[in-house]
Amino acid sequence: MRFAAFRQDGVRGLAVAVDGGRYIGLTAKDAGYPGDLDGLIVEGQAALAAAHRALSAGRPIDLDTVSLLPPLSNPGKIICVGLNYVDHSAESGFKQPDYPTLFSRFASSLIGSGAPIIRPTVSEQLDYEGELVAVIGRGGRHIPQAQALDHVIGYSIFNDASIRDYQFKAPQWTVGKNFDDTGAFGPVFVTADELPPGCKGLKLETRLNGQTVQSASIDAMVFDVASQIAIISEAITLSPGDILVTGTPSGVGLARKPPLWMKHGDICEVEIERIGVLSNPVANELR
Amino acid sequence: MRFAAFRQDGVRGLAVAVDGGRYIGLTAKDAGYPGDLDGLIVEGQAALAAAHRALSAGRPIDLDTVSLLPPLSNPGKIICVGLNYVDHSAESGFKQPDYPTLFSRFASSLIGSGAPIIRPTVSEQLDYEGELVAVIGRGGRHIPQAQALDHVIGYSIFNDASIRDYQFKAPQWTVGKNFDDTGAFGPVFVTADELPPGCKGLKLETRLNGQTVQSASIDAMVFDVASQIAIISEAITLSPGDILVTGTPSGVGLARKPPLWMKHGDICEVEIERIGVLSNPVANELR
Repeated sequence: MRFAAFRQDGVRGLAVAVDGGRYIGLTAKDAGYPGDLDGLIVEGQAALAAAHRALSAGRPIDLDTVSLLPPLSNPGKIICVGLNYVDHSAESGFKQPDYPTLFSRFASSLIGSGAPIIRPTVSEQLDYEGELVAVIGRGGRHIPQAQALDHVIGYSIFNDASIRDYQFKAPQWTVGKNFDDTGAFGPVFVTADELPPGCKGLKLETRLNGQTVQSASIDAMVFDVASQIAIISEAITLSPGDILVTGTPSGVGLARKPPLWMKHGDICEVEIERIGVLSNPVANELR
Repeated sequence: MRFAAFRQDGVRGLAVAVDGGRYIGLTAKDAGYPGDLDGLIVEGQAALAAAHRALSAGRPIDLDTVSLLPPLSNPGKIICVGLNYVDHSAESGFKQPDYPTLFSRFASSLIGSGAPIIRPTVSEQLDYEGELVAVIGRGGRHIPQAQALDHVIGYSIFNDASIRDYQFKAPQWTVGKNFDDTGAFGPVFVTADELPPGCKGLKLETRLNGQTVQSASIDAMVFDVASQIAIISEAITLSPGDILVTGTPSGVGLARKPPLWMKHGDICEVEIERIGVLSNPVANELR
């Protein structure tokens, strides 16, 4: 199942993909609207399946004319994994850690596909980072790695746009990773049963104005999705609706000579095979 | 106004302090229960005042016999400020940064006063950090420092208990700051009008088994509450119900020779003058 969260005429809606890639769905004003993905994912697989049936009786939704929203607008936790591809650690000047480098985003930074990534007035150093998102459907603590993928209900795509000078103003990266309107998430949510386990073998590609700037296989992760879940849950209870933003491969703008920053008018796309294309324009902050 | 969130016989409740430090209140089963502090704080000052009136018609609540809950169980953001006292930066081996060091906690790590801080089986390096909490009541972006304290609706206390070896396994501290049951928050929420602006001049003291291990004035912060709000909101929209955990002074166990770790059976108290005493026993994880 593939779900797209959207807003149309100021009302939230949810659509599902049917044959040939068309989407049909309902808005919160329609009878039978099953509610947001945030709630459905917490309820679990059966609720998603029921929602799919309800939405399949809806009307055509053109994803190009509605405003797409992040699949989850308010995930319980947004756990990001840094330095999770060997080549990216090297280009960033970090020794490859033997434990995942975790940081977090606040939901206040999230935008959907199509919404502008905002370059703030205080910095020119706006960088892209294409990433796979794993969405937790079943919670737990001390989850064994062998069962970890059973806890993933689906996947999506993230552009972890980063304000590099703010990221490195202090020993922790939080502020550079949390400017408003920098966490692009979408375009859609795809249930795990439609994809290979852990998205192994899928290709991730980031394009800036059509030019490929990142290209890697999900296989190149240092800590794959199952390992991340096992290691994180050693410390932290994971809950349905938490998301893991699983790290970016090499090719970021910071590591280029000269650096390549995103600027007003650019278009940044992150594509993951069999999931979709997350596409965002870049716009200057208006102040 | 002083509010205490609690659970009694499995039901959530809220109490307010009346004359002589007694608390009276209602539970969610009682008529007139005004709802959680999380919601009241989002609604704002008038909702808090109305809740105070409603709870003042309640029954006596003995804070020593109910289970205290964190004042907010699910803050929108938990923004923590590291290295925010000069002496603590020095003892931790960090150069004092000229920009706040921000990291975050997930709500899954929170516990109330009286609940055990859990020492996980995977580590012995459980450390205390007494801190002031500022609760955002009015949101905003680009908040000028001169108006910043108008955005604070009240204050509380935090013990930012940290698993030191996990904190330093990778360049980001997230996992060491987010073990389940390590973020002690409470005992109560005190509205800003009862305290000096920004809690300036108040004394913070942490005691382990009755022995004072941290003692400082809130005045010794590098970035005071107003500066934190101004600087953070340059990047991030703050919203009602967000909390700032404002940093710890020197004296942590990590910096002692030999290091002083908390262990099963210890009692750790964090007191801030005119707010209260946050007191938590320490217990080993049961696995």
